[in-house]
Amino acid sequence: MRTRFQQGLDDLRTRLLRMSGLAEQAVDRACQAYVDRDLSRCHMVLEGESQINAIEREIDELAFDLLALQQPMAVDLRFILAVTKINADLERVGDQAVNIAERVMDMVELPKVDLPVDIPRMAAAVSAMVRRSLESFIEGKAELAQAVLEMDNVVDRMRDEAFIMLVKVMNERPEVTRQALDALLVARNLERVADHATNIAEDVIFWVRGADVRHNVPQEAPAQPSVTDTH
Amino acid sequence: MRTRFQQGLDDLRTRLLRMSGLAEQAVDRACQAYVDRDLSRCHMVLEGESQINAIEREIDELAFDLLALQQPMAVDLRFILAVTKINADLERVGDQAVNIAERVMDMVELPKVDLPVDIPRMAAAVSAMVRRSLESFIEGKAELAQAVLEMDNVVDRMRDEAFIMLVKVMNERPEVTRQALDALLVARNLERVADHATNIAEDVIFWVRGADVRHNVPQEAPAQPSVTDTH
Repeated sequence: MRTRFQQGLDDLRTRLLRMSGLAEQAVDRACQAYVDRDLSRCHMVLEGESQINAIEREIDELAFDLLALQQPMAVDLRFILAVTKINADLERVGDQAVNIAERVMDMVELPKVDLPVDIPRMAAAVSAMVRRSLESFIEGKAELAQAVLEMDNVVDRMRDEAFIMLVKVMNERPEVTRQALDALLVARNLERVADHATNIAEDVIFWVRGADVRHNVPQEAPAQPSVTDTH
Repeated sequence: MRTRFQQGLDDLRTRLLRMSGLAEQAVDRACQAYVDRDLSRCHMVLEGESQINAIEREIDELAFDLLALQQPMAVDLRFILAVTKINADLERVGDQAVNIAERVMDMVELPKVDLPVDIPRMAAAVSAMVRRSLESFIEGKAELAQAVLEMDNVVDRMRDEAFIMLVKVMNERPEVTRQALDALLVARNLERVADHATNIAEDVIFWVRGADVRHNVPQEAPAQPSVTDTH
């Protein structure tokens, strides 16, 4: 039988997944807009931001209510706190998508040039990181989260390569400096999305392991059984 | 008489202020390193990062313990959740200081050039935002937080000006592209610090107003007096 509290936790999980879906979609759209020089997708990203912000607030409120109306057990408490942190990271993933869309809007006004940077490849890697960090959280698997941390190095390397190549372009072809700079900043924004995925993965490792640790400490979990059992 | 719970809240507040002091110091040092082309200050910033990360974890653990061992009243609960959010922002302020220090380390290897960007002025504005956002939190004043939000526009404008001027430099003097790009990225990192101050201010407004609202809803605060009074 599911208690109201358990339903609240499920609801929190569902909304966080929705938040994550919207944040990922925003990044994908912004990167697709980059590839296609597509202003309409840029506007979709800009318009989607307020929805992401609204869900962020809803999740925070729900987390607050669950904490205020119940006394969660240690493992649930860690889950709820992790949700509020991951929530903040996802909102900032959405902000990065907006930044990318703004750079694309700048680029579209300039002559199109071929640049030595593979944004779609970088975007695919970054999207995978966000998706897997959420998976690791939902499944409570620290080892999946660990894999996300390792992917971050790959993305950092892509960003460094883009940096070197694009600075070279700026030096050799000053007339396309602004386009190269826009691409460089898009690469940097993608790297920041990867950083948020890394933050999420770190939180997952911290909270999962912390929950495990606390779970094995007998004097903590059963300290207030009369309260924690009333869920 | 101060209860153990109240002491815990005070401890949380004290540590957050220490965290904020370290994050601000890191930004100031990185910007001073920019001005003086001072590698030793860059290294101090890089070495200080692990201390900031350690305090972040301590604050999270303390917040968790306070939530786990007590059933805080709504107003205290909001305070604790706000601390965990602000904590994450301050850690990222520290990350931005590291990014700035890394750019300075790149610049120091290149010939010194005069660039049309006033990094110290921008740094001063950004530091003031971080300081005031923390003040608004500690004093629980939404109107102070509101002032921080307004300062963000000023910093955004400085960043935009820096962007325009430095792209012009890149176009006209390709031989100093890399220095101009470093300066541009430093300006961008400072703007991101301002964004974190803005996040903190938004959280303060949300939590302070939320706390007020909830405080005026009689069915919530006294719902479990026998538990909340055991602090």
